Amino acid sequence: MKELRDYRKENIEKRELKPSAFLNPVPLVMCSLGDMEHSNIITLAWAGTVNSDPPMISVSVRKSRFSHQMLKIGGAVCVNLVSAGIVREADLCGVRSGKDIDKFAVTGFTKVASPVHGVPMIGESPVNIECTVKQILELGSHDMFLLNIDAVHVANVLFDEKDAVDLSKARLVAYSHGEYYELGKILGFYGYSVAGDAALKRRTRK
Amino acid sequence: MKELRDYRKENIEKRELKPSAFLNPVPLVMCSLGDMEHSNIITLAWAGTVNSDPPMISVSVRKSRFSHQMLKIGGAVCVNLVSAGIVREADLCGVRSGKDIDKFAVTGFTKVASPVHGVPMIGESPVNIECTVKQILELGSHDMFLLNIDAVHVANVLFDEKDAVDLSKARLVAYSHGEYYELGKILGFYGYSVAGDAALKRRTRK
Repeated sequence: MKELRDYRKENIEKRELKPSAFLNPVPLVMCSLGDMEHSNIITLAWAGTVNSDPPMISVSVRKSRFSHQMLKIGGAVCVNLVSAGIVREADLCGVRSGKDIDKFAVTGFTKVASPVHGVPMIGESPVNIECTVKQILELGSHDMFLLNIDAVHVANVLFDEKDAVDLSKARLVAYSHGEYYELGKILGFYGYSVAGDAALKRRTRK
Repeated sequence: MKELRDYRKENIEKRELKPSAFLNPVPLVMCSLGDMEHSNIITLAWAGTVNSDPPMISVSVRKSRFSHQMLKIGGAVCVNLVSAGIVREADLCGVRSGKDIDKFAVTGFTKVASPVHGVPMIGESPVNIECTVKQILELGSHDMFLLNIDAVHVANVLFDEKDAVDLSKARLVAYSHGEYYELGKILGFYGYSVAGDAALKRRTRK
């Protein structure tokens, strides 16, 4: 184990804040739902992966949001990832309401019928994840929707010559303390702290 | 609304993958727990904010993990954020088991008793979030722990001259498709797509 770099000692002195949702960074997703005639998009950061097998995501939505009423047990929704090229549109979908505007029209996004459920999905998003609502938990300000993942659609341009997905090409965006960040430098891969030389050589990005 | 930039049209052609946990990017957190004598650290990416009021986080843990047995309803845990300077140690805490090693000792992290619960927290982490386990849901491969946030401790060095937290100085890390990324360029802030000139001028990073 490398020697702990000194500059991190400066983090030890802390100031206490009142409790708030301070987990950072978090994902940024656009959830698209409804049908091809009447669709909506809602941008959320209170989202996360909650299970591997079966694969499941959670998204939390305030009861007052226009999309909340569209999310029912057994209903379908598409979780669309956000890249740097569409973050401005994603922000708009998060601050404006589908009560007032047609978000597909205003953003100019291409509305594609999702292959499995026929739910509208955002063509320009690098990854579309088709889901079904499995369970709803009322937590207070938000209701948490547990979603089963039914299909994953990844942009063709992200596959490399070995048919593996290189997601770094997607220029994905994270949300942290009120700001949108493009993902930056790759620091390592899962397991690199214990990997042997061969694996390090093969998997470390140039 | 700015004209949709053409290059994103290339994302419309998709390839379907079998269902998997493809939400990206996701957070990277080190959960520290136990007491000052017997402590452990587990690194997780299946984590997220699930509610604003009261503030709540979820973390998902496999039953087979050593830390799983330490997480009970009403029990305390500290969620420590991961910065670029400690990502290698965070990876180690994710791939090795507390059954085999003393992670505080091996990483060299400073073990600090958390102010509210007296749970071990990681001094070198830029932000420590003290939590209590509220509810456990069995989802399959993982159990999801819903945590109430009881206190947030932020490194002094992250506060600016107006006493606001500038989290961009923390160099936080996100996890995406098996790789650790430092957060990169700030693209905007929540609401910037509809903000007036004054707000844009004041809040846009130079």
